[in-house]
Amino acid sequence: MRAIDRAVRWRYPAAVKVLILGGDGYLGWPTAMHLAQAGHDVAVADNLLRRNMATELGTNSLTPIQPLQDRVTVFKELTGNEVRPFFGDLIDAQFVDEVFSEVRPDSVIHYGEQPSAPYSMIDRRHAVATQRNNVEGNLNVLYAMRDLTPQAHLVKLGTMGEYGTPNIDIEEGFIEIEHKGRKDTLPFPKLPGSMYHLSKVHDSHNIHFACRIWGLAATDLNQGVVYGIRTEETALDERVCTRFDYDEVFGTVLNRFCVQAVVGHPLTVYGKGGQTRGFLNIIDTLQCVRLAVENPAAGGEFRVFNQFTEQFSVNELAEIVRRVGGGMGINVSVESVPGPRIEAEEHYYNAAHTKLVELGLHAHPLTDDVVIRMIETVARYKDRILVGPIAPKTRWDPRS
Amino acid sequence: MRAIDRAVRWRYPAAVKVLILGGDGYLGWPTAMHLAQAGHDVAVADNLLRRNMATELGTNSLTPIQPLQDRVTVFKELTGNEVRPFFGDLIDAQFVDEVFSEVRPDSVIHYGEQPSAPYSMIDRRHAVATQRNNVEGNLNVLYAMRDLTPQAHLVKLGTMGEYGTPNIDIEEGFIEIEHKGRKDTLPFPKLPGSMYHLSKVHDSHNIHFACRIWGLAATDLNQGVVYGIRTEETALDERVCTRFDYDEVFGTVLNRFCVQAVVGHPLTVYGKGGQTRGFLNIIDTLQCVRLAVENPAAGGEFRVFNQFTEQFSVNELAEIVRRVGGGMGINVSVESVPGPRIEAEEHYYNAAHTKLVELGLHAHPLTDDVVIRMIETVARYKDRILVGPIAPKTRWDPRS
Repeated sequence: MRAIDRAVRWRYPAAVKVLILGGDGYLGWPTAMHLAQAGHDVAVADNLLRRNMATELGTNSLTPIQPLQDRVTVFKELTGNEVRPFFGDLIDAQFVDEVFSEVRPDSVIHYGEQPSAPYSMIDRRHAVATQRNNVEGNLNVLYAMRDLTPQAHLVKLGTMGEYGTPNIDIEEGFIEIEHKGRKDTLPFPKLPGSMYHLSKVHDSHNIHFACRIWGLAATDLNQGVVYGIRTEETALDERVCTRFDYDEVFGTVLNRFCVQAVVGHPLTVYGKGGQTRGFLNIIDTLQCVRLAVENPAAGGEFRVFNQFTEQFSVNELAEIVRRVGGGMGINVSVESVPGPRIEAEEHYYNAAHTKLVELGLHAHPLTDDVVIRMIETVARYKDRILVGPIAPKTRWDPRS
Repeated sequence: MRAIDRAVRWRYPAAVKVLILGGDGYLGWPTAMHLAQAGHDVAVADNLLRRNMATELGTNSLTPIQPLQDRVTVFKELTGNEVRPFFGDLIDAQFVDEVFSEVRPDSVIHYGEQPSAPYSMIDRRHAVATQRNNVEGNLNVLYAMRDLTPQAHLVKLGTMGEYGTPNIDIEEGFIEIEHKGRKDTLPFPKLPGSMYHLSKVHDSHNIHFACRIWGLAATDLNQGVVYGIRTEETALDERVCTRFDYDEVFGTVLNRFCVQAVVGHPLTVYGKGGQTRGFLNIIDTLQCVRLAVENPAAGGEFRVFNQFTEQFSVNELAEIVRRVGGGMGINVSVESVPGPRIEAEEHYYNAAHTKLVELGLHAHPLTDDVVIRMIETVARYKDRILVGPIAPKTRWDPRS
């Protein structure tokens, strides 16, 4: 076993066997390196869906990502730490069972799903493909856990978008309801806003059932919108950088705004821009996932953490990028374009997010410095930017 | 247009074009005849999944059902009313579009799903097949409605099992929640108890989304457990009778008890027998579905009706069959067997079911006379009963 940060080792004495599903993606690959550096024994599985979807849509990663085979080779050269790659599809039950049999994970981190709301709304074929890929892949994982590693802990990536924008405070997965003189703590009602978000709601229900019926242990991380590009490990060498998407289908809002600022395009705010969501730095994604892995749920427990650190409206983010860009000598303008989604553009939003803080999360807030470094990184790769795929084209209602 | 019951015609002036998905099943075929007799223009689509699943499991229908082709021929001979059959699978998007283009329904009654909780719990393959069949078929229907018949009304068969057994009163689809000084009406939280019930929860979320985003009109009928065999139309001629399942996978509890009484087998109560559910006579299923069709939801509305007429515990039903059977000279005993499901065997249960009553539902309660006629019908087909498939074998946790 390699050297481990002493303070962390004291708090979490055991290194565990971690299997990261979707370990080639934006978050999966940095997580793999981060947990390997923390002393865990890491394997990743991926079917390269994200790379293939980018090819399908004619877009790219801003950063020049290397094949997974090269990533793990370079990472081992740099750190001495091994990350074992498996190539296959979670839809393929036999592949899933083979990987679980081979790795025998203590902890399964499941990023391995189609992650884009607009992609799921392109048309019927993409909607069905998204729900099939995500729901069936996740079912195959649950059965593999039941039959092969029933003591393992599932850390599943969900999304804050499962909740939608109700007119009450959003709690972490469950809510105590008093009704007609009786009381129960029940799953928080869900109002997901796309075929993708629906697939995550379906997953959550399926996982909750597996915990109740089979005694599996699971943590559902309802993650906010992630921004950022640099983690301690991706900064080691350009050859282990992670992908960075900025197009209308895969780019999250702050990442996209930084790219628009660099290419001199107005920041495109969808509609009124009052859409408010939870956000977090990619560094904090790694921290949260690690906290979940190192503080596992109990057998039979279905635990839900809301994984974000700050709330922003789209207008607030646009204003931050405009102001910070201005300070860097970039003239940034903001433009409202008709929203391609059907969503409330002004609404109440207040979501709890204390459980990960209780486990020790130290948030990295969105400071001006963070934005400056994002813009600098984007500027370094300016020549790779494809402008065509940035403007919104995928409409929630194609008849509108 | 054929003769129509005057009273009904007065209340519902327009005959509508109805497409019944799953129109060859236990409820689908009687519904087709019932709505045709009521003056509606009826088409049915079916992939014969129920017949094929019975073949797969080596069980049968107690009643000697005819091929759908013969059913529609005989029904036309008997009544002059035409029911147009389409043979195909809802998983096949092209088939779905062809049927919608051809029929141009005003109302779509969607029974076309794998309907058995135990079937979905046989193993991983059956779980995945159930969720794929139900979720993808339903998605294909939603897209066909959006693109081909956006004014049509979807009447979707869900199940009371979507709610599970929470410790508060169950409302009809939505619940007003007061929380930290704010208020919203949100989807009622779901605690489904099998991979099948989960598929219905997934469907409900997908349909709700389609109503919110595309303005579709839908009624989700959260149906209780159906019993009975005889409707006005199935009684016309044995050649148009409906299927009647009594095995552990497809037989619902009261139907199974009547068969056990007739063959002299103890009524098998699962565990403590305190499991309480909503129940309804098949006659009332037809009445409820017709009320939904003839009083459609508005565009954009996702309406949920809890479709049952009475609540019973399993013990109460066993006692009714024991007592009624005794009165008919049948010596019926009751036996508790280990429950194959993982579920609360004693729990609070009180579910609202007023919306269909407000639309005019006149319930047919479970009288002794109803049970006598069920037992008499079962006795008529006693020679067809296969005893092997009755005892519970499909366990929710195969390791238990």
